[in-house]
This record gives sequence, structure tokens and C-alpha cells, in this order.
Amino acid sequence: MKKILNALISVSDKTKLKPLLKILKNNNIKLISSGGTYKEIKKLKFECSQISDFTNFDEILGGRVKTLHPKIYSGILNIRKNKTHQKELKKNKFENIDLVIVNFYPFEQTLKKTKNNNTIIENIDIGGPTLVRAAAKNFSDVTIITSTNQYSELIDELKKNKGATTLEFRKKMSQIAFAETAYYDSVISSYFNKILKTEFPPKKITHLNLLEKLRYGENPHQEGALYSFAENNNLNKIHGKQLSYNNYNDIFSALNISKTYPKNTGTVIVKHANPCGASITNDNLESFKTALACDPVSAFGGIVSCNFKINETLALELNKIFIEVIIANGFDKKALKILKAKKNLRLIDASYFSFKNNFKFNSFGDAVLIQSGDHKKLSKKDFKVVSKRKPNKVELENLIFAFDTCRFVKSNAIVLVNDKSTIGIGSGQPSRLDSCQIAIDKMKKFFKRDGEIVAASDAFFPFVDGIEKLVQSGVTAVIQPEGSIRDKEIINFANSTNTVLVFSKTRHFRH
Amino acid sequence: MKKILNALISVSDKTKLKPLLKILKNNNIKLISSGGTYKEIKKLKFECSQISDFTNFDEILGGRVKTLHPKIYSGILNIRKNKTHQKELKKNKFENIDLVIVNFYPFEQTLKKTKNNNTIIENIDIGGPTLVRAAAKNFSDVTIITSTNQYSELIDELKKNKGATTLEFRKKMSQIAFAETAYYDSVISSYFNKILKTEFPPKKITHLNLLEKLRYGENPHQEGALYSFAENNNLNKIHGKQLSYNNYNDIFSALNISKTYPKNTGTVIVKHANPCGASITNDNLESFKTALACDPVSAFGGIVSCNFKINETLALELNKIFIEVIIANGFDKKALKILKAKKNLRLIDASYFSFKNNFKFNSFGDAVLIQSGDHKKLSKKDFKVVSKRKPNKVELENLIFAFDTCRFVKSNAIVLVNDKSTIGIGSGQPSRLDSCQIAIDKMKKFFKRDGEIVAASDAFFPFVDGIEKLVQSGVTAVIQPEGSIRDKEIINFANSTNTVLVFSKTRHFRH
Repeated sequence: MKKILNALISVSDKTKLKPLLKILKNNNIKLISSGGTYKEIKKLKFECSQISDFTNFDEILGGRVKTLHPKIYSGILNIRKNKTHQKELKKNKFENIDLVIVNFYPFEQTLKKTKNNNTIIENIDIGGPTLVRAAAKNFSDVTIITSTNQYSELIDELKKNKGATTLEFRKKMSQIAFAETAYYDSVISSYFNKILKTEFPPKKITHLNLLEKLRYGENPHQEGALYSFAENNNLNKIHGKQLSYNNYNDIFSALNISKTYPKNTGTVIVKHANPCGASITNDNLESFKTALACDPVSAFGGIVSCNFKINETLALELNKIFIEVIIANGFDKKALKILKAKKNLRLIDASYFSFKNNFKFNSFGDAVLIQSGDHKKLSKKDFKVVSKRKPNKVELENLIFAFDTCRFVKSNAIVLVNDKSTIGIGSGQPSRLDSCQIAIDKMKKFFKRDGEIVAASDAFFPFVDGIEKLVQSGVTAVIQPEGSIRDKEIINFANSTNTVLVFSKTRHFRH
Repeated sequence: MKKILNALISVSDKTKLKPLLKILKNNNIKLISSGGTYKEIKKLKFECSQISDFTNFDEILGGRVKTLHPKIYSGILNIRKNKTHQKELKKNKFENIDLVIVNFYPFEQTLKKTKNNNTIIENIDIGGPTLVRAAAKNFSDVTIITSTNQYSELIDELKKNKGATTLEFRKKMSQIAFAETAYYDSVISSYFNKILKTEFPPKKITHLNLLEKLRYGENPHQEGALYSFAENNNLNKIHGKQLSYNNYNDIFSALNISKTYPKNTGTVIVKHANPCGASITNDNLESFKTALACDPVSAFGGIVSCNFKINETLALELNKIFIEVIIANGFDKKALKILKAKKNLRLIDASYFSFKNNFKFNSFGDAVLIQSGDHKKLSKKDFKVVSKRKPNKVELENLIFAFDTCRFVKSNAIVLVNDKSTIGIGSGQPSRLDSCQIAIDKMKKFFKRDGEIVAASDAFFPFVDGIEKLVQSGVTAVIQPEGSIRDKEIINFANSTNTVLVFSKTRHFRH
């Protein structure tokens, strides 16, 4: 238990001070402060000394140097039970500082407000983090408070212990303090990496904010949590029970797809982070119905993501099947009423969600693979028609939709498409031929409409057998990346069967 | 361009100083230092002032306070082109400090050497990071050097510019400096989280070391790199061309499996981060042959991981097929000679690799899902036999092997096993019935031996149809997690067909 005699306060966020100052006064704790904080304390009518009076040194360089003084740091850093320390303190006429309340220049907020490098650099706090680090290091004697969120806890602690704090409390506050200083410098480090365009620095430090502790991880015996590189993830859950780890995994996979479709046109259904149906059309109801028709069995218990606002008619349709989550760019009032009838169904408004952070982290024990996202949509520059028969406009549109959907299917991926809707998805197989078979089986089972069928493959066919199987099952146009030593054989096969064959320049493995 | 007049040096790592001091002397740069660094500089016969003489303040508290002085920080932080700053500097008789060379108390190394909390806390550097942060902030006027690795670059810069540095150089050094301070505090923050047993802190800061910039990511249009939470990943590549992103992804997936098998017994073959064959037996050659037999087509271009040392006989066998990577606990001399004949084949010694870091990161844009690893092996406490027929010893061993392998197969996963070797793996399907079919198809295609067949499912069967399909194909014992509302129906089905049915308590989704 450590009684507090002197407190140093220097805060950028000057709210919530009053009740804190009151308890400090009640416990006869002397205050030292400067600048804006000093003025605020005086305004609130509490007694306080100036740091410059305490140190006998006037702050200079427009405030760049004010607390960086041996009297301050000796007051914080001396070990109270160390006799030499105490002798030196006495000799220099230094006093203990037992409580430090500091928060930093708002560097992260400044980044949001301005692009002016000088303003940004000026907002790198030097004195603040030093005070915090020194106090946090000496937690056996000193209490460190770094955020207004901790004030009420400090007040309770001081009340309970008559102006003292326990070691347990001080240690916990130091833990928070070092998270703050590490976070602060991580943001600065990221800023330097950004302006100097360094994507893979030798030392990469990342800062994450906890958004939600989850009930468990992928399985009940694993622990899990949702963090964000930002302050929130712009997903607005407006109904339903708590989301699980697997829900989030599916939600992000679904949004990754539906956010790439043309505005207000697309529905995708995801199960186990893999699409099991996708469709784009201007008729929203139709887009859901067709996406569902691709594999209504797998869609059971899946999640539906629409990149448009859901209306009453669609809500009635959605309510007919069991789904865990519906994501949309908002919900009509009437739609909401209908869907909310199901207590457990989660409804998510993802209007403001976007995939900002371009890098993807994937960790295995100590190792972490980092890569930029696969955001390359197919453009006309990126493919060439290699067959004699050229695709007509409809075929070309379907081929592009098939290939752009294929990017999101776990490899090896085969996607069959009719009328900009998937009608067979083969995924997750080590053999491309097996993925073809799975896609064809799905199509045979569920596809009851008429029309031409096109196919996309996420990587090249190593042999003719894959494309052969597709063509035998009714596929009339195929898109695949180029690159096999058997490309020529495959082109010959396409020509011999009057199949359209398009080679893309990009491959889209997703494992 | 900024000419350097005064340099402050305070280094924990005192190597490589001589050539640096020489160039500083040649450019008439005055040195300020203290303690051990001062002694070392004098020992090397260079001139140097004591920091205490510079500040007129003796260091106290056993070195806890020595550089935290306004004269030092005014010298670093003043803006050279700011007239008020210069007036204040003159008035206080302060001098500029233009170059700061500092490295920190070795906190991370201390963690490896001791478990003594006091020693660890004492190694939190306060003065060092403050000097570095101040100099790095003021990069428009000051040069900051934080590691001996940068000395030669500094020497070149000073030679080229006659004792001055360019803005570009100073900015780059500041970038490195803030990476160092962020890294340093991230290590401290992790330490506090560890001792206070906080797994999911509100602010999570992670520090990674770049091990290798990769040619590209999962696809050629993506960028990729391999980082580690540690200083290296203990994978020793002893032959072959550079590893790719996908190689690493497969390698970690393979090691995740083979490191769980009993010592010196197991081979697993991985393709697209998914096992396509696994076998454990004391006969190493046999273990590879049987793992391969599970799906020799998919194994083409895959990677093989053995948790034993590879000998000549096995090397000859391995050389018969095309594989990209072989991982083992070492290689015989003769084996090495045989395998090295293939120029591109990568050979990895993973004897020292282990999955230390328990948490797994998975990011989607700004969102990051973090979960503890799925390391739960099946133990006798975690399952119960629910069928009338009880498994014999061999069946039980096979069921356990099947279930423990099933954990690593992408969901929905069905694994068929005979004689502790997989003979059919169905993975990556949204429908469990489809995964059953894929596993059965593989078995029918490649399994030519005799013997009983057991099956494992990573999650419960929602309907009887899955287990029915397995039993119809010759499976005589099944293990699956409990939890379906139809568990009773499934038990009844097992009993009516004299099938062994075992319920596990744990589920093993892997998406």
C-alpha cells in the first residue's frame, strides 16, 4: 500500500477532472501541473503548483521542453526503500511524485484531421510518454493513470484505501500504460512507414483495438476475440444474439465478395467462409432467389449478404429458410419487422463497411505470413480470347462474373455460371478435376432452368481432362489463367468442340 | 543538409564503435557521453565530455536519471530555423545536439535470460527511448542512430557530405527509430500482459521481425512477406530454390500436423494447406508409402512432412514422384546426396521448429480475428462409446488417429482410416454429405488393401444420411462430436448395423 503525497497532472483530454481533483484534495494530495492543465485546475478552483516553480526551470521551445527535468524524474523514479536513492533525493532537495496522470498529444486523431506533415510531427508527444513510462516502470512506488476512463477506478481505489493505492492496482495501471505507449509509437511508426512507402519494414509493429471478446473461437475449446486496426469495424448489428467467431469469419468472407459487386445488384450466400451461391441482377428479390437456387441444401444455416437495402418482399422470402445472419445495406422498416420476428437471426447493416487495410495477416505459431489482398477484378486488359469461336456479349459478361466470383472460392475452384448467377461451385479440392466434378454434380442436382453455361477456373487446367469434363456436361465457354505447358492442347480441345476459351493473366489461389 | 557539431552517444551494445568514432573525429564532431559508453570511448583513445559536465548535474539513482535534463532535450528538440527557440537556447547557454546514437537496455534479451521480475523491470530503459524519440521527432535538424547495423550507413553519409546528413537520410533513420521504440514498448506491454495473464487486452500491440520478403503473395499480383513474433522461425532450408508464400502456407500446415504425431513415426502429405495423405507407423518408409497411397494424384506437386530423419531408402522412394518440398527432422548424408540431385526440390530441416505462440491471427481488412490454437488431442476423458458394439483395441487406435487427423482437414471434414493411415479424405464442403462422398470416392479409387475401415467427422452428423453412406461403403466404426438433435437416431442406426459409434466432446471446425 502506497500513500500518495504529490501528483503530477498533464492531460491533453481535460474532461472529467472535477470529481478526481475533489478526491485528491480530500486526501491532501498536492498537485503539480503546467500550461492548459494548470489553467483548467485553477478554473475548477483547486490548488496547484506550476511545474516551472517545482523545477525552477521555465518551460521553453514553445512547450517542447517542460517536464524533462531531473527533479521530476528523480521524484518519479527513485526507489522508496533504497537508502542511497533517498540520500541523493534529500541532498538535491527533490520530492517524491507518487501519482502521474498524463494523456498524450492526440497523434492518431491528428492523422485523421490533417495531411500536413509538420502538424502531424509536432503532435508527436515526447514529454508525455516519458512521464508515463517512468511512472509505469516504478509501479512498486508510483501510480500511473493514462486515460479519463481510469478516473473512476482511481477514485474508488483512493476512497477505499484512504489516499493510497495497492501494488495490484499500480501494476494493472502500468500494464495499461505500456499498452498506451506501445500503441502510440506503433501509430507513429506506421505513419513513417506510410509516408516513406515501406510495406514490409524489418520491424513491423501493429496496434489493435479490442472490439469484442467472443464466447469462444472456431470451436468451444478455443478462446477468441475480435480486434480492429481501426477504432471500430463499421458493422452495425441491429438485431439478434451475439455473433460468434465463425459468424464473423463468414461475415467478412461474404462482405469481401458482395462489396465487389456492382452497387445494389448482388446477393451472395456463404457457408463455412466459402460462397455456396451468388447472383447479380437489378431485381433484388430475383438475385436472392437465384443465389439460393445454386445450392439450397448448403445454404441451410448459412449467411446471406446483399449489397442493397432489403425490402418487405425479400424479407418474407428470406424468412422461409433457416439462415444465421443477414447482411445488407440497410433494411426497410417493414422488412425489419418481419425479420425481427426470428429472435436469434442476426441482422447486420454493413452500409459503411469497407475493406480499408490492404494487408492480410495469417499466423502459424510464431510465424506470420503477410500479403496484400487479392483485389484484382478482371478487366479487358487482363484477358485474351484464345479460341476460334469468340464470346458474344452475354457470354463475356457471364465469364467475367464467373471469374470474379471464382477468386473468392477456396482453391481449387471451379465456378459454373448461367445468367450472372452461380449454378455450381466446386471448392477446396487438391485435384482440379475433383472440383470440376463437384461443381457439375451441384449443377445437375439443382439447376432446372435453361440457358448457356460458362465456367471459370481459379488456376490453369494442368491437363485436358478438366475442361473436357466441363464441356461434356454442357459448358460452352471457359475462362482460366494461362500458364500450363499444355495450354495449346487445351486450346485445340476448345476449338474441336466449338467452345469459347478465354485466358486471364491473373491467377486467384485462395487457400 | 545539416552539419553535425555535437553528438550524444549512449549505447548498450558497445561493439563496432572505433570506425564510427574515427569519422566523427575527422569531421570535428564533439562527443558527449556517460558511464560505460564514456569509458569505452576513452579506452579507444577518443576525446569525449561527460554528460554530467555538459548538464552540470550528476547522474543519480544508480543511473536511473542521467540524461533526463532540459539542456539535453533543448539541444535536441529546438527547431534550428525558429528564432524564438534560438533566443531561448542562447539565454540558457544551451548547445545544439545534432546527432544522437543510442541503443536500449536489452529488455527482450533479459526476458530470455531470467524470470526475476525485478531484474526484468530494471531493464526497462527510460532515458534511451526518450533520447531516441526526441531526436527522431526533430529529424528536420537531428540524426538518430539506434543500432550498430546503421553505423556503416552513417559513416558513408558523413563521408559523402563532409560531416553533414541529408533530410532524406535523417527521415529514414527516424522511421527506424520509431519502429525501435514501438517494438521495445510492445515487448514490455506483452510482458505485462503475460504476467497479469491478460490474453485479450483492450489495446493489443504486436511486434514482428521480417524474416524474408517473398517473391509475391498467394498469387503473383499480390505482395508477400514472412515475419515472426520471434527472431527466427527455426526452419532450416538446406537445399533448393527460394520458398514461396504458398510453400510456407503448406509447410506450416504440414508441420502443424506432423508435430502432433508420436515421435519418429509419421508422414503427412499436404496440398493447398490441406492433408491429402497421412500415416503413422514405426516403419518410416512404410509411413511415406501409405500416406502417398491415400491420394497419389493430389500428392503431385505437394509437400511431404516426416517427423523423423530421412534415410537413403526413403530418399530413393521420395525421388520417384514430383514434390515441391520435403520437411524432416534431418536428413542422412546419403539421403541428402540423392535428394539434392533435384535442383529445385526444397529440403527443410524442422528439427527445432515448434508452435510456440498459441494465438492465431486472421485478418480481413481492418478487422482481425484472434483465437487460441486448436491443440486439443483426443484423450480418453473426451469421448464415450455410445453404440452397443464396443471398439476393440485396433479400432480404437484407428478412431483416435482418424479424429486427430480430422482436426487439420478443412471443414466439413471426413477422414477414412485403415491401419493408422488415411485412405480417404473429404474436405472443404459446405455439406457434410458431400464430404462423405468425396472421402468414399477417394477410397474406392485408391484403396487396394484389406482391413477394417473407420471414419471420423470433425462435427456431428446433422442427419442419418452421412453415417448411412459411410456404413454402406464399408465403414464399421465412426467417431464424431455429440450434439445433434438427431444423435439418438444416429445411435439407433449404428446399433441396427452393428457399427461402433464413439462420441467425442470436442468439435474441430477449421475453415
